[in-house]
Amino acid sequence: MFLGYTGGLKLESFNMVANHAIRQVAEDAIFGANTQAQKAISEYGFNNVINGTIGVFLDDEGILVTFDSVFNALRELKDESFAAYAPLNGINEYLDTAIKTTFGDYKPDGFIEAVATPGGTGAIRHAVWNYSSWGEEILTSDWYWDPYNTIATEHGRKISTYKLFDEKMNFNFEDFESKVELLLDKQKRLIIIINSPAHNPTGFSLSYDEWLGIIEMLKRKASSNQNKIVLFIDIAYIDFCEDESRRFLSLLSNLPKNILSIVSYSMSKGYTFYGLRSGAIIGVSSNKDVAIEFKNACSHSNRGVWSNGTRCAMEVLTKIYRDESLLEKVEKERNHYKEMLKIRANSFMKASEEVGLEICPYKDGFFISIPSNDPIGLAKELSKEKVFLVPLEMGLRFAVCSVSQEKCKITPRLIKEAMKRI
Amino acid sequence: MFLGYTGGLKLESFNMVANHAIRQVAEDAIFGANTQAQKAISEYGFNNVINGTIGVFLDDEGILVTFDSVFNALRELKDESFAAYAPLNGINEYLDTAIKTTFGDYKPDGFIEAVATPGGTGAIRHAVWNYSSWGEEILTSDWYWDPYNTIATEHGRKISTYKLFDEKMNFNFEDFESKVELLLDKQKRLIIIINSPAHNPTGFSLSYDEWLGIIEMLKRKASSNQNKIVLFIDIAYIDFCEDESRRFLSLLSNLPKNILSIVSYSMSKGYTFYGLRSGAIIGVSSNKDVAIEFKNACSHSNRGVWSNGTRCAMEVLTKIYRDESLLEKVEKERNHYKEMLKIRANSFMKASEEVGLEICPYKDGFFISIPSNDPIGLAKELSKEKVFLVPLEMGLRFAVCSVSQEKCKITPRLIKEAMKRI
Repeated sequence: MFLGYTGGLKLESFNMVANHAIRQVAEDAIFGANTQAQKAISEYGFNNVINGTIGVFLDDEGILVTFDSVFNALRELKDESFAAYAPLNGINEYLDTAIKTTFGDYKPDGFIEAVATPGGTGAIRHAVWNYSSWGEEILTSDWYWDPYNTIATEHGRKISTYKLFDEKMNFNFEDFESKVELLLDKQKRLIIIINSPAHNPTGFSLSYDEWLGIIEMLKRKASSNQNKIVLFIDIAYIDFCEDESRRFLSLLSNLPKNILSIVSYSMSKGYTFYGLRSGAIIGVSSNKDVAIEFKNACSHSNRGVWSNGTRCAMEVLTKIYRDESLLEKVEKERNHYKEMLKIRANSFMKASEEVGLEICPYKDGFFISIPSNDPIGLAKELSKEKVFLVPLEMGLRFAVCSVSQEKCKITPRLIKEAMKRI
Repeated sequence: MFLGYTGGLKLESFNMVANHAIRQVAEDAIFGANTQAQKAISEYGFNNVINGTIGVFLDDEGILVTFDSVFNALRELKDESFAAYAPLNGINEYLDTAIKTTFGDYKPDGFIEAVATPGGTGAIRHAVWNYSSWGEEILTSDWYWDPYNTIATEHGRKISTYKLFDEKMNFNFEDFESKVELLLDKQKRLIIIINSPAHNPTGFSLSYDEWLGIIEMLKRKASSNQNKIVLFIDIAYIDFCEDESRRFLSLLSNLPKNILSIVSYSMSKGYTFYGLRSGAIIGVSSNKDVAIEFKNACSHSNRGVWSNGTRCAMEVLTKIYRDESLLEKVEKERNHYKEMLKIRANSFMKASEEVGLEICPYKDGFFISIPSNDPIGLAKELSKEKVFLVPLEMGLRFAVCSVSQEKCKITPRLIKEAMKRI
């Protein structure tokens, strides 16, 4: 079940908001689960509770990880770097750096433009708003990050899904292709959101070969000039993956002009800058006019939605990439936690195998998901054992980013046992 | 003329963006004028150029003013206060503080709700999106801040204007009322944006009695239950006005339920936090359901547009208001620049009178406007004298916030002379 907002509530038939903005509010699933966990921690102590609900990197004691190297750079900035407005599109050097670090050694050929946004969310908003029309469907996988739905609903669009996994828990290419076809037939225009590598909530990453298959398929669909395809790639967690995971980005080279690739860049996870709201929307096209149109549309959207971005965060990124030794320090610090994440996830996966707990195919990232027919019931049963996970529509989400290896190791058994009891 | 974006450009009849997002891009008027000024400064030296284009507070040497008291508070925050996400709606204490400082001694009776936004722009966006429908017109004065138009256009709405001044340069109540009536007849639903006190670009502020007249008139219009009125009050510059200027806010008490008042709060000017993007949208209603609906709609919009706000800025505001002596320091520092602003503006006004230059009735704020039938021609002529102002549709905007008293004193004569030459 989706526990976010749904439409339709009428206030005794008097609404001040316009019809499209009538929203029913349900408690946010993540917030609700975390509140319960915090209550248990205050009652039973941190060591006796497993809080797998928090989607930011916490150390083994439950303290938010902040990279010292990054924060030293932030604190060295002059007051003016915090105080001054950034340019509407973002600081140019920031945008160049965002492009550079996004693609690494795998920069695609083509025209690449970027505009600063508040985190990845802002990038998704601009893409959804500018590249789809009222009432249209946006395609993503059936396991998906809930806010995709909120962003679509906010703007009068709908989320449509394909099955991410087949029965063998492999990428369900067939269902993906059939849904792409269906929606293109219907709309002629389609935004596809793919959150890979390190998919939230499953931790799944498409392989290079799977990407190759996707791109080839989209090229076939684009052979009809009538069709316009926007391939939106959400890479929010990529900085916690191996460099190799960027290789597929080179496949965005020389696509037909009616395929626009958009990549969302975010400083939230890779620089522990969640609360500073800094990201970018990056467009890649083989066609110069399409790239310029992208820049213009996003620039208009910036001015027409939030004006400009958080300057200090942009300056920190440029500072890091101007100074090789600082960059090394940041990467060293991040690698330490990348390693910790791997150890935690491996413990969880190994323990799952040992107790026979079926989990989604995790490869990278902050989350692991456990399929369930009764996520709310299972979450409730687990809470009796002081274990807290986020109930999603198709299962439970466990945040390896915020739980110690020790706890990651014992959680699968507790889930398996709880499953037997419900 | 409006030098921002307008619709309609076709890329050789191939557009990847959806039809509503096709934008023609013209150079931003403010940015263009400032670029010219910077070029002149580098050529002739700062002392020989008058750059009246910059809308942030600069000292007499052209350096951005940052409040030490505020920045000390910012720098005392722990890394976690920068790193962590803020709650979706903003930190509760921040919202309470924003409400407290917005209304001061003039808090209206009623249900008051607030949601954090990136500066005032984000608040305008939420109001425009949630309280008007596609294609509708939003009412503001003919002298207005250009981004109102960008925000409206971005979301498929239009700006409609009333004449701010009558022939005697007094508030044109008659034209205002007739436009309110016209649009209510047509739409039954109307957002009215009033930027007062310290209107950008004119520096005009409505008097308490003028506000009284407006509120009484809106109540009459609301006597038809069919009509829904959103009175949006943009107070971006209010922290640079006298406390007395908040008095009109008490008039928002006990309005009929089909009038919703919205006030946009911003930390940009009052705390020199322009680049940290922190503000709030504050709703006031006599009806609890309308207030809750407001909070829900804005909360949905936050999640569906930019997720959450800049945490560190919110923490600084709560810190200041928890600590009386710190608050005193901030106010003392701000008062120093408030005084400086007054001196600069008075110099400009006095010199205008002396040379017979007609200006809009300035009362408070960062800008003074000079009516002109040929703003571009006049700006061009002035640039020959190394004086740079922003050409708007109905005149030139001069930024007293960023020009020394000495230069404020000589500018009116230069404008008057340039007028004679064109």
